[in-house]
Amino acid sequence: MGAALVPPTIEDVRAAAERIAGEVHRTPVLTCAAIDEIVGMRLYFKCENLQKVGAFKFRGATNAVRSLEDEEAARGVVTHSSGNHAQALALAARRRGIPAWVVMPSNAPAVKRRAVAGYGATIVDCEPTLEARESTAAGVLAETGATFIHPYDDPRVIAGQGTAALELMQDVLGLDAVIVPIGGGGLGSGTCLAVQGEDPGVAVYGAEPERADDARRSLEAGRLIPVETADTMADGLRTSLSDLTFGILQSHLTAIPTVAEGEIASAMRLVWERMKTVIEPSAAVPLAACARLHPVLAGKRVGIILSGGNVDLDDLPWTRD
Amino acid sequence: MGAALVPPTIEDVRAAAERIAGEVHRTPVLTCAAIDEIVGMRLYFKCENLQKVGAFKFRGATNAVRSLEDEEAARGVVTHSSGNHAQALALAARRRGIPAWVVMPSNAPAVKRRAVAGYGATIVDCEPTLEARESTAAGVLAETGATFIHPYDDPRVIAGQGTAALELMQDVLGLDAVIVPIGGGGLGSGTCLAVQGEDPGVAVYGAEPERADDARRSLEAGRLIPVETADTMADGLRTSLSDLTFGILQSHLTAIPTVAEGEIASAMRLVWERMKTVIEPSAAVPLAACARLHPVLAGKRVGIILSGGNVDLDDLPWTRD
Repeated sequence: MGAALVPPTIEDVRAAAERIAGEVHRTPVLTCAAIDEIVGMRLYFKCENLQKVGAFKFRGATNAVRSLEDEEAARGVVTHSSGNHAQALALAARRRGIPAWVVMPSNAPAVKRRAVAGYGATIVDCEPTLEARESTAAGVLAETGATFIHPYDDPRVIAGQGTAALELMQDVLGLDAVIVPIGGGGLGSGTCLAVQGEDPGVAVYGAEPERADDARRSLEAGRLIPVETADTMADGLRTSLSDLTFGILQSHLTAIPTVAEGEIASAMRLVWERMKTVIEPSAAVPLAACARLHPVLAGKRVGIILSGGNVDLDDLPWTRD
Repeated sequence: MGAALVPPTIEDVRAAAERIAGEVHRTPVLTCAAIDEIVGMRLYFKCENLQKVGAFKFRGATNAVRSLEDEEAARGVVTHSSGNHAQALALAARRRGIPAWVVMPSNAPAVKRRAVAGYGATIVDCEPTLEARESTAAGVLAETGATFIHPYDDPRVIAGQGTAALELMQDVLGLDAVIVPIGGGGLGSGTCLAVQGEDPGVAVYGAEPERADDARRSLEAGRLIPVETADTMADGLRTSLSDLTFGILQSHLTAIPTVAEGEIASAMRLVWERMKTVIEPSAAVPLAACARLHPVLAGKRVGIILSGGNVDLDDLPWTRD
């Protein structure tokens, strides 16, 4: 933390794919004629909602954990997160047989604590502030000599996330474009490297909620503008880019269309109803963005990264008052 | 209608599979380590929720429609139903290029009317009574010379439904048992014929809601006992067996465990959360029944027919007051 990180390349994504091949699911690519008709494109959905832990995050966490030397790995890994990355890192560590510590705010939902604990990680409580999270994580690192694995500001993590798009490019030939949701930019960066490393002629679009449009604003301004408030149902996309991910996205993305909350909910529902597959709100953002991209992508072959399927079934967007 | 129907055989199921091969999806078989651990069996889920129209019903309807001679077919097909069979028959008819009439009660939900109309069928309204449905259907038949296709009391329909289990038997070798939900018994009968036609050593279990347990009571009594009230969330299983399906089930099923409403909701939720696949309550009944069957099936390889995925996302069991 501190020194500038070296951006990964397509070769890192390919190496990650080999490294994690036995650990991750090669998820299916689904198509749906009914949705194609509605959207006016030929869509290919890469189903990371069917990945282990229910999200693409397991790819990056596994690549990071498997990249460590034995001695380094034996001291374990640490992160502070209450989301999919924490579960992904916990499982990746367990599968390598090394300890994992997850720093979580004391007010994190019980269901998330149980999930992380269920994968065998040690939960370290802290006050619900960013400062407390970072200082608590630093304390764990000092005490254990473990390695900190950031959810997205890490070349190993980015390379791992890119393996989803690499598989998509291998499984579906002749794509015109790929659309990926942008949160912290780890998945987005890895997708850019994989797609354009395989075929520089394929356009990559990011997609963001209007209510967490820091990546779009950053790209327009040409400098990193962190998100201030991010009151979106797409809870995986509330984070801001890092310098590392901003740089990669800036040099690869064609554009970042943004979508309203109602459009996210409608797209999510459309996938549930017509494809019968459970996706989380963040994963619906690229499909929602298809309406904005119709002028340029009508009739084209478009890949969509369905990033995850971890959703609270007691609190669905269309059942809220 | 009237004359006794000749029960279909495994040869009819195999012929149906050939007849409909280009028309239906060969649906995937999914597995889920997390659910296996909870249930204590190795489960193989045959995903008819991913079938066209979102349910196995498209198999039987297609086999019936494709079994008609050209001249007969040209006069069209009729049914009275407001469920998946109506949509399935409408689509099967459209794909053969013949007319379909669906008799529906005037109080049927608008969403179901739109779905049937969307597949190109003509909706014929009637009063919401069984008598009105039957007399209205008889009127359409007299006027058009079309063929009536019953949702389950029809050997062609039963043979078609059996093709799902036939594919399961081909795709998963060494199954010990298969569990199938029982409503009118069309899917159950076809499954019995397919499974035991392929391998007489594989046990077939039915599964019913406690609140619509006419098949279990009929098998125990040795005679057909129609359901009186069927206030279950498993709306596909509210119908009673016919003489035809009762006879087939009686000679094949090992047992019919029944499950409570809360168990159906929990099993449905488990599939959504862990397999990320949308199933309707009826499709969750066999998984719910695994707890009852644990004494005999612990550790065994068990096939589960996920019958369909058409569910009202505005009215999920766990969001009801």
